Amino acid sequence: MNSAVVLLSGGLDSSVLLHEVRRRLGSGTLHALSFYYGQKHARELDMARIQAAAAGVASHRVVDISFFKELTAGRSALTDDAIPVPDLASLSAAQLVQPPTYVPNRNMVLLSLAAAQAEAVDAQDVFYGAQAQDRYGYWDCTPEFVDRINAVLALNRVRPVSVQAPFVAFSKADIVRLGAQLGVDFSNTWSCYRGVPPACGACPTCVERQAAFREAGLVDPLCQRP
Amino acid sequence: MNSAVVLLSGGLDSSVLLHEVRRRLGSGTLHALSFYYGQKHARELDMARIQAAAAGVASHRVVDISFFKELTAGRSALTDDAIPVPDLASLSAAQLVQPPTYVPNRNMVLLSLAAAQAEAVDAQDVFYGAQAQDRYGYWDCTPEFVDRINAVLALNRVRPVSVQAPFVAFSKADIVRLGAQLGVDFSNTWSCYRGVPPACGACPTCVERQAAFREAGLVDPLCQRP
Repeated sequence: MNSAVVLLSGGLDSSVLLHEVRRRLGSGTLHALSFYYGQKHARELDMARIQAAAAGVASHRVVDISFFKELTAGRSALTDDAIPVPDLASLSAAQLVQPPTYVPNRNMVLLSLAAAQAEAVDAQDVFYGAQAQDRYGYWDCTPEFVDRINAVLALNRVRPVSVQAPFVAFSKADIVRLGAQLGVDFSNTWSCYRGVPPACGACPTCVERQAAFREAGLVDPLCQRP
Repeated sequence: MNSAVVLLSGGLDSSVLLHEVRRRLGSGTLHALSFYYGQKHARELDMARIQAAAAGVASHRVVDISFFKELTAGRSALTDDAIPVPDLASLSAAQLVQPPTYVPNRNMVLLSLAAAQAEAVDAQDVFYGAQAQDRYGYWDCTPEFVDRINAVLALNRVRPVSVQAPFVAFSKADIVRLGAQLGVDFSNTWSCYRGVPPACGACPTCVERQAAFREAGLVDPLCQRP
């Protein structure tokens, strides 16, 4: 592996992933790829820029696919102003299967685009920060999803690209621990779905993030709400 | 099936598909989705608009993803001005496996986006005009590709979308015959990769198209070069 594309949101998971891939690549060529798809927490893209620079990437593209918000209008609390981001505690068991913060088929779209870039720049691997979640879940962050995406890409007759998701069986606490070992500046990441500082501490990703830092015995510089 | 999304390029195959899906749907809701990804033959998008209107679609979006041309720069004769569109006759057997007119991972990107829209509008099906090709081929037009894309989408826990490719075992002549039965106006379709009227008659898609009309015993209103 001497060249890779990392799908970088600027959140905790993909930021740690970026630095882990830099470690694995050594002096290899690292491309970071980010998307503005209409998310309310576009603040994370500023963090993506900072992390990409810190990791010494060869390129960092922030691609505007804000049409995606209109294409999937009315379906996600992450993109639709009329749908509030819920507190995790308010979600029913049925909602946790595919919560309001799920964005229709977003991850397949982003991975397909990352695979296209990887193919074009002769990178064999796309790195994807999907991680195991305890309390809620998305079908497009699972090991089965990654395996099936790879089954599609394996059909390419000349330059098959592979999606690597090294955190897919990690807890978020594992990712925090690894990030700390790698010296990742957690203050320059952003997770809160509500997108406005300070992090709300109650949305699904804030709750997970806080629990992860507690479990890792560390303090989250972004949010110290009990 | 009372609602569907059709991936519509404005070429022969997807134009016939659009009218076939209209026939199957009856008065159901038909959405057409087209993309400008930087293709030289963007003329086909004008044809897509005409065909969509003729089929009485509920919506036709033409989405600008021209960033795709930069993301995959240097890799396709369809998008890169520095790479000429080859005559089919000039291609070696090795090139035919994945010809210069292949666009890196384009079809997975477009199907992923179409599946996102379908999920958002509660359409169960995305229709895709992939067809069997005789003389050259693309991995992302094969039955295996469609099957594996569907294996990904089947993981969706609430609104799984299915990609239907009813022409995947059709020859292009079969598509011409069906189009004639459906009364499709072939003069308002566009196939030539070179994008400038009259159709060149020599690029891979022109050669296939002309052979298909001949085999079907019909005259192509776009190109009558022997």
